[in-house]
Amino acid sequence: MTSANSNLTALLSPRSVAIIGASADFNKINGRPIRNLLEKGYAGKIFPINPKYDKIGDLTCYPSVEAVPDTIDLAIVILPAGAVVEAFKALGRKKVPAAVVFSAGFGETGPEGKALEQALVETARANNIRLCGPNCLGLINAFDGMPATFSQYADGENVPGPIAFVTQSGAFGTAIAALARNRSLGLGFFVNTGNEADIDFVDTMSALIEDPRVKVGTGYVEGIRNGDGLAALGRRSLELGKPVIVMKVGRTKVGSRAVSSHTGALAGEDAIFDGVAKQFGLIRARNEEEMLDMAQVFAYCDLPKGNGLAIATQSGGAGVQMADRADDLGLKVPVLLAETQEKIGKSIPGFGVATNPIDVTGQFVAQPAILRDSLKLMLTDPQVDIGVVWIELMHKNVDLLVSVFEEVKAQSTKPLVVVWVAAPDAAVKELAKRKIPLLRSGEAAIEAIAGLVQFSKAQQLAKNTGSAIAKPAAEHEWQRAMASAKNADGGLVASAVAMALLNAYGVNFPPATLAATVDDAKAAASTLGYPVALKIESGQIAHKTEVGGVQLNLQTPDALANAWASISASVKAKAPNAKIDGMLVQKMSSGDVEFVIGLQRDPSFGPVIMAGLGGIFIEVLKDVVFRQCPVSTADAEQMLDELHAKAVLDGARGKAPVDRKKLAALIAQVSRFAVDAGPRLSELDLNPIMIRGDQMVAVDALLTLNTQ
Amino acid sequence: MTSANSNLTALLSPRSVAIIGASADFNKINGRPIRNLLEKGYAGKIFPINPKYDKIGDLTCYPSVEAVPDTIDLAIVILPAGAVVEAFKALGRKKVPAAVVFSAGFGETGPEGKALEQALVETARANNIRLCGPNCLGLINAFDGMPATFSQYADGENVPGPIAFVTQSGAFGTAIAALARNRSLGLGFFVNTGNEADIDFVDTMSALIEDPRVKVGTGYVEGIRNGDGLAALGRRSLELGKPVIVMKVGRTKVGSRAVSSHTGALAGEDAIFDGVAKQFGLIRARNEEEMLDMAQVFAYCDLPKGNGLAIATQSGGAGVQMADRADDLGLKVPVLLAETQEKIGKSIPGFGVATNPIDVTGQFVAQPAILRDSLKLMLTDPQVDIGVVWIELMHKNVDLLVSVFEEVKAQSTKPLVVVWVAAPDAAVKELAKRKIPLLRSGEAAIEAIAGLVQFSKAQQLAKNTGSAIAKPAAEHEWQRAMASAKNADGGLVASAVAMALLNAYGVNFPPATLAATVDDAKAAASTLGYPVALKIESGQIAHKTEVGGVQLNLQTPDALANAWASISASVKAKAPNAKIDGMLVQKMSSGDVEFVIGLQRDPSFGPVIMAGLGGIFIEVLKDVVFRQCPVSTADAEQMLDELHAKAVLDGARGKAPVDRKKLAALIAQVSRFAVDAGPRLSELDLNPIMIRGDQMVAVDALLTLNTQ
Repeated sequence: MTSANSNLTALLSPRSVAIIGASADFNKINGRPIRNLLEKGYAGKIFPINPKYDKIGDLTCYPSVEAVPDTIDLAIVILPAGAVVEAFKALGRKKVPAAVVFSAGFGETGPEGKALEQALVETARANNIRLCGPNCLGLINAFDGMPATFSQYADGENVPGPIAFVTQSGAFGTAIAALARNRSLGLGFFVNTGNEADIDFVDTMSALIEDPRVKVGTGYVEGIRNGDGLAALGRRSLELGKPVIVMKVGRTKVGSRAVSSHTGALAGEDAIFDGVAKQFGLIRARNEEEMLDMAQVFAYCDLPKGNGLAIATQSGGAGVQMADRADDLGLKVPVLLAETQEKIGKSIPGFGVATNPIDVTGQFVAQPAILRDSLKLMLTDPQVDIGVVWIELMHKNVDLLVSVFEEVKAQSTKPLVVVWVAAPDAAVKELAKRKIPLLRSGEAAIEAIAGLVQFSKAQQLAKNTGSAIAKPAAEHEWQRAMASAKNADGGLVASAVAMALLNAYGVNFPPATLAATVDDAKAAASTLGYPVALKIESGQIAHKTEVGGVQLNLQTPDALANAWASISASVKAKAPNAKIDGMLVQKMSSGDVEFVIGLQRDPSFGPVIMAGLGGIFIEVLKDVVFRQCPVSTADAEQMLDELHAKAVLDGARGKAPVDRKKLAALIAQVSRFAVDAGPRLSELDLNPIMIRGDQMVAVDALLTLNTQ
Repeated sequence: MTSANSNLTALLSPRSVAIIGASADFNKINGRPIRNLLEKGYAGKIFPINPKYDKIGDLTCYPSVEAVPDTIDLAIVILPAGAVVEAFKALGRKKVPAAVVFSAGFGETGPEGKALEQALVETARANNIRLCGPNCLGLINAFDGMPATFSQYADGENVPGPIAFVTQSGAFGTAIAALARNRSLGLGFFVNTGNEADIDFVDTMSALIEDPRVKVGTGYVEGIRNGDGLAALGRRSLELGKPVIVMKVGRTKVGSRAVSSHTGALAGEDAIFDGVAKQFGLIRARNEEEMLDMAQVFAYCDLPKGNGLAIATQSGGAGVQMADRADDLGLKVPVLLAETQEKIGKSIPGFGVATNPIDVTGQFVAQPAILRDSLKLMLTDPQVDIGVVWIELMHKNVDLLVSVFEEVKAQSTKPLVVVWVAAPDAAVKELAKRKIPLLRSGEAAIEAIAGLVQFSKAQQLAKNTGSAIAKPAAEHEWQRAMASAKNADGGLVASAVAMALLNAYGVNFPPATLAATVDDAKAAASTLGYPVALKIESGQIAHKTEVGGVQLNLQTPDALANAWASISASVKAKAPNAKIDGMLVQKMSSGDVEFVIGLQRDPSFGPVIMAGLGGIFIEVLKDVVFRQCPVSTADAEQMLDELHAKAVLDGARGKAPVDRKKLAALIAQVSRFAVDAGPRLSELDLNPIMIRGDQMVAVDALLTLNTQ
């Protein structure tokens, strides 16, 4: 374990805690952590630091950290913002490895606060102190009864459980933690990272999922700065089989406006976050309730082998509702095998239904065997990977039902999720004790199960990934291509050069010739064959169409000559200062489907690749999927599968289906180009790529490079 | 009030109740209603009927209804299925106007049960008895303390409130009612309609919204048989300003499979239900929680004037989350006026945010004025129609916060919705008393507010509707056109005839001539002008393309002759028995956008019209909207607005925008055609309609009529 990691251990599982600026008033922010540590039975040492007191309660209070006669693992700093940097110097002298700073008045307040925060970070680094905060509520390690916080959430019971929760927001995080408690869902860790001046969401979660007591990570996120860290977190989560579920706000422009006025974190491009999260097996929840629904199911269930769902209910309507939602989310609700149906049919009343959803009817209260046997039987069906059962109320029958579910769970390794609408409190508590997930509504349960299946699939995909990333056509192709590039000093790259570069990575373009004169163009066209397109070629013109620089579908030499004249005149008028390299004569190409592949650099995630259907789909419907580069062919196939209009690839209206494997390979190749280009890459647009079956031809390449 | 309605009053607000088949064991299904009536303090008379007893508790028990010395408004029938018809005959002799039948063993069990149910309905009708059920839990009128039910929901408090709830499912309905109770949301009425042999969801809800104590209707629905009744219910709901919120299951094929195995109700085409519900101002909720969220907001808030939303929170993140969701759902989150911002800025701490969302920070607990003044100020902004405030936990400050919200509510007529995450029970109760909606999550609140805005808009639209329904081009056009139709005896109508019919309703087709010979065709084409399309014309060929009966874009007489030969050969081979009327020579037309209008007859809703963008949008993305015919132009504009890809109509990729008003008028005209055609109409497909700007030309009309 590195020193940085052991410092994180000191933060998350300290053997001793000092409270810098401690108060004897346990209702104050600087008194509450001491009260909390005492009340929760923290087994480590507690050192209040304040020159004003000798004792706080039964605890010795020290005038300074240096006066403490023992090592300090974690310092809680609750001082006015202006005093924090000095306090860190003292912590450094005392070799305290970790500190959490509650104090506000830093980056969140404006330029002065930002400067103070910068000074704080530098002091912390110089003194080898890992810092949580500032402007945070602190953290709770419920396993060790260690609440280094003044959050309201510590006011109630903090029963430990296999869920780690990290939140960038204090108030929202407290609310979520309280909701978890209302579900009897134990949070082993609660950490509020505040301004994330040093330790961020990714650092914290990465440390927490290594804890053997933690089975699931959950997070409230507004923005991620460390994209590579997030990717590593996702990969580790898949390796460990410990899902990390994230709820992220700031999806829309309106929402992002509010984010930027609220924290220093980058809201980023939400669609990029979404794609990258999927790529690395992170599970994204729509909101706090869905995150907790998923956490509950993940905490108590093994991963399913497939996506076959059996549904049993006491209400036919609830079965319909769940089947609807399952269908929305790509889960299967198979008709059970005839023999399974027959056996279930014998267990339930005549007016019940044994197909799937199974309607056990309300009779099971009088005869629990109806429910018990149906559940056991449905889980034996080979098409079924997960079972869900829906009941409601039943205040008088909690014990009976809990024992039924316990018995069913004991007899099958397949996950069983209980939906208990308007459940009695006793049911919530008793099922939590038995590690049986209880959800509040049928739809919520299906959504959580879909998350479980998603994680299971991501694990399988991860096993296939890596080796399948496309390699460039030849080693050093990038360097060779760049060496021959006329315009390698940054900015827009001339089309012919861009096409040559991309061609080395397996992107096909229509045959084309750069012509200096109209006669050259005619000669080129007769060699290429009509019809052709004529396009102005200039490193200074990004949007050729806008300056009248493109004419398509030219059928004859005369038409070509007219087009040459008209383009020349238009470009001269609209872009008089552009240096013209000539005109590109390009053979016209057509396809059944237009596709777009794009590259850009994201401040958090580095080079990211975008894929989507062209035309209306991208311009109007914004139906695109992002990934961090590089992507494997398998990743890229997953991307295609996430397009809403993916059915278009299957060959709508009598057209040939697109060769998805080949298209995925092309996406992977372009992603490899982004990696090879490294920081030189600014942006690439291959729009459109005309596809017919397995023929894929990019009509244009708009490439922008950063200066060397 | 009609007799049927007064019978419904006897059902819903009876002055006396007889229990047929009463038991002295109050734990049994036939004992529970008596216990419930006694416990809830029913003020009317209770007559247990059972020859086995003289008394049940303190109540006289009668051997038969005829022995009761008083009038009976409502009979609760709890007998074996086989005895129910006889019991109804006795009820008839006693002139009992209404009965609720708990007994199962009717339509839900199979053909025999269906026959028994039919006999029951006939007996009820013959005896002028309105029947609720059979196979139902009964009903509760909480206003009058009248629980004619054995539902578990009656086991707890049934506090009356302005919400009427009608459910087709007993178990699911009970669960929903219990969830409402957990929210301190009073259900004035709870009615389970069971098999709906006589009284159905629509009848019941239509009666309940007339009750002055009811402000909101809520319903759990699996299928609607009485489409006209649903439309009338919606219209009445808009007139009264009493929203009816419906959750309907059976959206998908998988779900519908389960519905049909579960009840006798028609699941119908869900998209049709969805469209018709919108058309008539019914609000559809996604699930039970959303229905209750909406009910809570509707019950306590006036309708907003517009869709401007102000958001205040103690957590910036919650503001972002709500702004995101508002943006998804078409609500505005306006930046507040500078003067409003300035005033709010003076009320909140320096690190707060005054734009919108407003971050009041956590300081308001110490200084309630921060919250109170911010809320009052944001509601004064003229761009704001609705306010929402987000807080969490605060167990120690319930009284304080409740008084703040009460004061703010008193000073503004604009709706104020409180989101209180992990709210203390006391907060739920106290806010309910003050008629202030308290929702459990930010997203839920925004969704409920969107429902409020939707209802408000539907009311405004309804005011404009009716007069704007397009009239046919000329009176009796339908009759005249049909008189000249060669194929008016049902089945597929020849294209030329269909086009003539539709043309009378304002649908334009390309100029075309029916040709009997290839020379006729050549003559026609030279008159029309090339290019032309050539299409086989036969009343026996619906899908011309499939038999090789269509050739497009013919540029020359030679091409036309070749096409004639090739179509002749292909049709002869593929449809040898079809009676051929000739071939249609049609001028080729093109457009920027392809559109589709369709008509069909729905078993519940009669003639319904479908509109959508053509090609991939309809075939792959299923992006279509339905309405019941006729629709007004305003309705049709609303339809266009509901298309996911509606932005395509605005002129994507440099194309001219579609004249939406004209397209809406066309939809309205086609809907008028459906009404005029009446039961003769089976199906119509205008696919595609080529649109460029305000030019709209249908290329084909596939019309099928029912026999006269």
